[in-house]
Amino acid sequence: MKSNHQEDLTRYVAVFIEEMVANGVKKVVISPGSRSTPFALLLAEHPEIQVFINVDERSAAFFALGIAKAENQPVAMLCTSGTASANYYPAIIEAKYSRVPLVVLTADRPHELREVGAPQAIDQIQMYGRHVKWSIDMPLPESSSSILSFAKSTASRGIGISRESPAGPVHFNFPFREPLVPNLSNAYSQPPLGNVLVTGGERILSKQQSEIFRKKMAEKEKGLIICGPQLDRDSIDAILSFSELYNFPILADPLSGIRSGAHRKTTVVDSYDSFLRTEVVKNSLVPDVVIRFGAMPVSKALSLYLKHFHNLDYWVIDEGGQWLDPIGKATEMIHCSTLSFCESLTNGSCPSVESKWLNKWLSINEQTKRCIIDSKCTDMSEGEAVRSLIDWLPDSSTLFVSNSMPIRDVDTYFLNTNKQINVLANRGANGIDGVVSTALGVSTSKAPTFLLIGDLAFFHDMNGLLAGKMHNLNVKIIVLNNNGGGIFSYLPQAKEDKHFESLFGTPMDLEFSSLSALYHADYYKAIEMDEFSTAFKKSCRHSGVSIIEVVTNRGKNTEQHRKLWNLVSREIEKEFR
Amino acid sequence: MKSNHQEDLTRYVAVFIEEMVANGVKKVVISPGSRSTPFALLLAEHPEIQVFINVDERSAAFFALGIAKAENQPVAMLCTSGTASANYYPAIIEAKYSRVPLVVLTADRPHELREVGAPQAIDQIQMYGRHVKWSIDMPLPESSSSILSFAKSTASRGIGISRESPAGPVHFNFPFREPLVPNLSNAYSQPPLGNVLVTGGERILSKQQSEIFRKKMAEKEKGLIICGPQLDRDSIDAILSFSELYNFPILADPLSGIRSGAHRKTTVVDSYDSFLRTEVVKNSLVPDVVIRFGAMPVSKALSLYLKHFHNLDYWVIDEGGQWLDPIGKATEMIHCSTLSFCESLTNGSCPSVESKWLNKWLSINEQTKRCIIDSKCTDMSEGEAVRSLIDWLPDSSTLFVSNSMPIRDVDTYFLNTNKQINVLANRGANGIDGVVSTALGVSTSKAPTFLLIGDLAFFHDMNGLLAGKMHNLNVKIIVLNNNGGGIFSYLPQAKEDKHFESLFGTPMDLEFSSLSALYHADYYKAIEMDEFSTAFKKSCRHSGVSIIEVVTNRGKNTEQHRKLWNLVSREIEKEFR
Repeated sequence: MKSNHQEDLTRYVAVFIEEMVANGVKKVVISPGSRSTPFALLLAEHPEIQVFINVDERSAAFFALGIAKAENQPVAMLCTSGTASANYYPAIIEAKYSRVPLVVLTADRPHELREVGAPQAIDQIQMYGRHVKWSIDMPLPESSSSILSFAKSTASRGIGISRESPAGPVHFNFPFREPLVPNLSNAYSQPPLGNVLVTGGERILSKQQSEIFRKKMAEKEKGLIICGPQLDRDSIDAILSFSELYNFPILADPLSGIRSGAHRKTTVVDSYDSFLRTEVVKNSLVPDVVIRFGAMPVSKALSLYLKHFHNLDYWVIDEGGQWLDPIGKATEMIHCSTLSFCESLTNGSCPSVESKWLNKWLSINEQTKRCIIDSKCTDMSEGEAVRSLIDWLPDSSTLFVSNSMPIRDVDTYFLNTNKQINVLANRGANGIDGVVSTALGVSTSKAPTFLLIGDLAFFHDMNGLLAGKMHNLNVKIIVLNNNGGGIFSYLPQAKEDKHFESLFGTPMDLEFSSLSALYHADYYKAIEMDEFSTAFKKSCRHSGVSIIEVVTNRGKNTEQHRKLWNLVSREIEKEFR
Repeated sequence: MKSNHQEDLTRYVAVFIEEMVANGVKKVVISPGSRSTPFALLLAEHPEIQVFINVDERSAAFFALGIAKAENQPVAMLCTSGTASANYYPAIIEAKYSRVPLVVLTADRPHELREVGAPQAIDQIQMYGRHVKWSIDMPLPESSSSILSFAKSTASRGIGISRESPAGPVHFNFPFREPLVPNLSNAYSQPPLGNVLVTGGERILSKQQSEIFRKKMAEKEKGLIICGPQLDRDSIDAILSFSELYNFPILADPLSGIRSGAHRKTTVVDSYDSFLRTEVVKNSLVPDVVIRFGAMPVSKALSLYLKHFHNLDYWVIDEGGQWLDPIGKATEMIHCSTLSFCESLTNGSCPSVESKWLNKWLSINEQTKRCIIDSKCTDMSEGEAVRSLIDWLPDSSTLFVSNSMPIRDVDTYFLNTNKQINVLANRGANGIDGVVSTALGVSTSKAPTFLLIGDLAFFHDMNGLLAGKMHNLNVKIIVLNNNGGGIFSYLPQAKEDKHFESLFGTPMDLEFSSLSALYHADYYKAIEMDEFSTAFKKSCRHSGVSIIEVVTNRGKNTEQHRKLWNLVSREIEKEFR
């Protein structure tokens, strides 16, 4: 049989796409380009695939990350050859460290056009280095049964790798020769090849291993449980039972999902970031074991508290594949699922413990929360804006939080609540890039999504807003505009008067109001708290992209934070006198 | 002597910076961040270094590329740890393929905070893969004489590598421990360590090698010289003499620098992209040797013309290190400088040649140019806009041209001129990313710079505009707004009605006028040619960033191009009848 370029191309790509769909990849973010035409057209043609167009590949990749993060499902992205693919790099790195499954599809020139000075041809083989879990340079399109079978199993294999714990990005590089247009008329009418499905089992402790930890637990009286970001939300109940059985307080990061929802929170400590800065707490509350689930929390105060102990017994429970111990204090690195660990240790008999330890933590927590609540005022500041926003958020909503100051403010003001608020952030690499697009990606399945972001991060990914317009997404963006890099005011650099504003403060003096016209977005400016309140209410009345610019002041923010920490310190010190 | 962290840090970084300066790196583009503080402050403090702040690292890297491209000198860029560094990737790749020397400085966490889940810590070792010429993970700051000496020689070494032909990017990764603030009071007051300077010699042909090519040339009567982008401008006179001696026409790409300037152009063919599409030309003008200097030209018609010959004798002269033969036709790959090649071959006796060959090329060229000139009309179209812009450009100005359609239109309409116009573009990887920033970088030393760009490319790097505002740059941006991807209308994809507009056309419907307020830029909209003319004149009256949005229509542009090509074909065919 004579080989037919267009039929070979069509069948090969269609088989790959059918396998993607069978393996649960049903959303794809496409950036326009020529070399990627076979995939773009066949993806658009597949009845079960939802396509999102996103012109700027950097934003596109973060947008895909957002969808995958919200749905906990692998999402694909497609771009053309050349530097387009390099724009994916920041989101790929974030996905790796925050364990989000992503399927990266890059179109490439065929072998005879590589490294010979051809236009839009760069060396794409392994171009993401160690930042993808797996990368493959695919063969040229063929429709021999061996190559179709290879295309099929390679799709399953790659998607399987991306899902497997720790989840992350995988990269398929596809060389295509011209002509690039597939035959759409019969693309999906061929008899199906059958699929390969991949099931990744869960790591659990063996009976012997569980027994060892049960014995160790029997000796512990003053335990602390830490729940960080990337926590498996299905394990929350088991963690609560574990905590209640042993009378160990849970220090829960705002991204752990524990501070919010209908579940009981009697052992959940939510204001530790404010009180662990106090010297007397460090010296008086000495744990004999610390058990951490999820990644390291946002709180710097918590890190410093833990680092300060010389002989800390510190257990990190994690499914493995990465080594999540930034403070270098782990004594037990336990590679299994959180759920299985908690269940193993609550299955046996309960050790005799006193609850004075737990009560002390809870009482300090209450006292700190009173200080936080009492410090409320009506003057505009970033803290007040964040506190109010959290108050106003409707039940069952999603709050996406930018890095740098917003996540720290949320750590302070997002306290235990029965409202179900899904708090998300990019805490893999903690960048300020791609935040707008990630939130927009989240909003495709969690609408409305509220985004809390500073002006620098907002500026960094303004291009992301185009997708909001093109796909009619429902996102309320609260931009804390302190005209520059607010976080630097908290660092020693702030004393370098001569170069501070030019190198760190970097005021941009941007007129964000004009974004309203550029992107046909709904825009509000709030200088006073009541303006913020009115704008928030108005923005919620209709669907679409709303931008609420909250004007704040860097100096005042720093001052307010320092004031709160001092107040908490004074109150807590009294407790220990 | 007790080691002092701040003094060690200061001395180590200062020595590196002094060596950078001694080796000619005097401009640095800095993106704000914390981990990079030692470098940022010490760079700002150095009296001979000019610092440009650029918040978005993707734009920052292209901005640095633009400065380096305009000045033909290595330029440094500095960013903090984490995904910030990944945003540099597209510009680094472009620099590699367009041979622009760049010095990439990334700040990193110290070893104990790598791959342990620490915030803003990613695996930065060799993170740009094969897309940098050299990459090194530097030691932690020390002020021992061996480490200072190492820091010094490593700076020279890396900058030397970046300059050496083919020039390109190098990467220094610097781990820093807190505290990060150096001591500025005596940073540069220490006795200098002395410098290592690197001189890279030029590749020339030996006497024996020259003799071989002289002999081969003696047999050639119908030679063609092709001058592409990345041509060494200092070799233009030698190429002209070579061409005149042998009576070989020069097919000069708009980026070769040959079409423009006071030099003689009697053998320079500038309209080949329009006439090489004609079948009869391909069949009648059969060269017995083709000699190419610089990279492959933009013209697809030229590529197809060359590919069409079965036994082409095709010499590529290049300093080596890359293999620039996208059409796979090279018979001689000659690794030496263009200047030395031309001088070697014009030094000997002149072969006896007839000039009928040259005259035929020149006469077809003249006829084609008449068609191009006669096709001028007053209706707005991209072709007319480009043609007029080129007319209006003042002598000694710089025109930066975006990829995709603008560079192709410039190829058609930028014909031989005595005006000195420096035409530049990013033709390494031909991306539409980072174009605004590259042009702004160019404008730091070549003001005013005129940028010709389509709406998609303009959108892709709108963030680049911030630098224009922050550094008071003088750039006139002509945005050809056909509301989407114009180039796709020329490709077979255009027939896929069902998905064409959503996947390829991608209309963005952006209100670019609002950028005027966002960035305090001067903005004009031109729908008719006279509006364009008025806007152009007005924008030139003052310094600063001006945006002239020229509204065009994708369908009409395609039609106009096809009409011109048909007209040329008809006229040329008469010539051969």
